[in-house]
Amino acid sequence: MSEQGILVVVSGFSGAGKGTLIKAMLDRYHSYALSVSATTRAPREGEADGREYFFVTREKFEQMIEEEQLIEHAMYVNNYYGTPRQYVFQQMADGKDVILEIEIQGALKIKERFPEALLLFVMPPSADELRRRLVGRGTESEEIIDKRLHRAAEEASGITSYDYILINDKVEQCAQEMHELIQAQHRRVSGNLDFIEQMKAELKAV
Amino acid sequence: MSEQGILVVVSGFSGAGKGTLIKAMLDRYHSYALSVSATTRAPREGEADGREYFFVTREKFEQMIEEEQLIEHAMYVNNYYGTPRQYVFQQMADGKDVILEIEIQGALKIKERFPEALLLFVMPPSADELRRRLVGRGTESEEIIDKRLHRAAEEASGITSYDYILINDKVEQCAQEMHELIQAQHRRVSGNLDFIEQMKAELKAV
Repeated sequence: MSEQGILVVVSGFSGAGKGTLIKAMLDRYHSYALSVSATTRAPREGEADGREYFFVTREKFEQMIEEEQLIEHAMYVNNYYGTPRQYVFQQMADGKDVILEIEIQGALKIKERFPEALLLFVMPPSADELRRRLVGRGTESEEIIDKRLHRAAEEASGITSYDYILINDKVEQCAQEMHELIQAQHRRVSGNLDFIEQMKAELKAV
Repeated sequence: MSEQGILVVVSGFSGAGKGTLIKAMLDRYHSYALSVSATTRAPREGEADGREYFFVTREKFEQMIEEEQLIEHAMYVNNYYGTPRQYVFQQMADGKDVILEIEIQGALKIKERFPEALLLFVMPPSADELRRRLVGRGTESEEIIDKRLHRAAEEASGITSYDYILINDKVEQCAQEMHELIQAQHRRVSGNLDFIEQMKAELKAV
C-alpha cells in the first residue's frame, strides 16, 4: 500500500458543515493533518496564529509568493490567502493525508498542479436543509442568507471539477464516509506503482 | 447518491484468492449481484448450469455474439467465455453493484466500452505468499506452480490498466475494503450529475 500521504482538498457550500465535518474526522482518525493557510487579513477575536491561520504581513506574503513557498494563493476582499508548501509536503512524506479546506478557485489550481490530489465537495442533503442550517445559526440576516444561497447556486456549477461529493446529513456518518473514501485512494494503482514493480520482480525470482 | 449500480470488474493472479474474497463479499453485504459467464466448455464435476457458468453450445454462443447479447467475450483453449448483457444491466438498473470476475483481456474490453466500470486487481501480500498458497492447495505439481507464477509475472504488466489494487492478506478485512471502495464510487461526481443539477435548481428556488 502507498505510504505517501494524499493531498485532500475539501470545499463546499457555506452552511454545509465543512468545519464540523473536518473536526470530527481529525478527532476520530489520526492519520490526517490539517493544513493551515497563511493570510494577510487581521485575526478575528478568538483566532490564534498558527491555528486558524498563519497571520502575516502583506510584505511577508509577497515574499512567500516570490520564493514559491505557497502551493496556491488567491486574493479575496483585498486580502491574500494561501497554502504553505513546506508543511503540506512534510506531512505527506511522513505518511499523513493532508486536508486542505479551500475555495473552488484554489481547489482547481491544486488539481492542475497536483493531478493526484483528491477533490471533495461537501453538500447538504437538500437546499431546504441548507437554508434551515443558515437560519438556525441565528447570526445572519435574511438578506445575507439569500446571498449565501445564491452564491451556493453559482458554486454548484464548479462541482463537476471535483472527484467526489459527500452528503453531510449526519456528521459522524459523513466523517466515516470521508475517511473510507480517502483510504480507498491509497489503493489506486497510480499510487502503488512501486509495489506493483516490486511484486513483478519477486514473481520472476520465486 | 447515485442509485444506479456500478459495474465492478475483479481480476487477479491465480492463487490470490479472488473466489473466496468475492464469496465473503456476497455473504456479508447484500447490495451486490454476481455476474455468471456463459461458456461453451463442458461442465466439470460439481458445477451447475447458471451457478458457475451458463453452459451453452457453440452454436448458441455464436448466436449470442451475433445478437449482441454479450458485453465482452473471449476464447481460451478453444472455448468461448462471455458476459451476458441482460442480467448485468437489469441488476444495475435495480441498484445492485454487479461483480464480474474476468481475465485481464476481458477487463480491458469492458473498460473500453464502459469507462465508468471499476477495475479491481486482487494481489497477495507478496510473491512468497502466493507461492505458499499455490503449494498449500496440494493439487498442483511443482511445474504447474512455476507456470502459474511465471504467468502472474506476465499479468502484472497489465495491472496498470486497473483502477485499484486490493491486497488479499486476511479475506474478511479485504472484503470490507472492497466494499468500502465500491461504496466510495457511488459518491463520484460523474455518477451524481442529476443530483447536482437538482440541488442547483433547488438552490435557485429557495
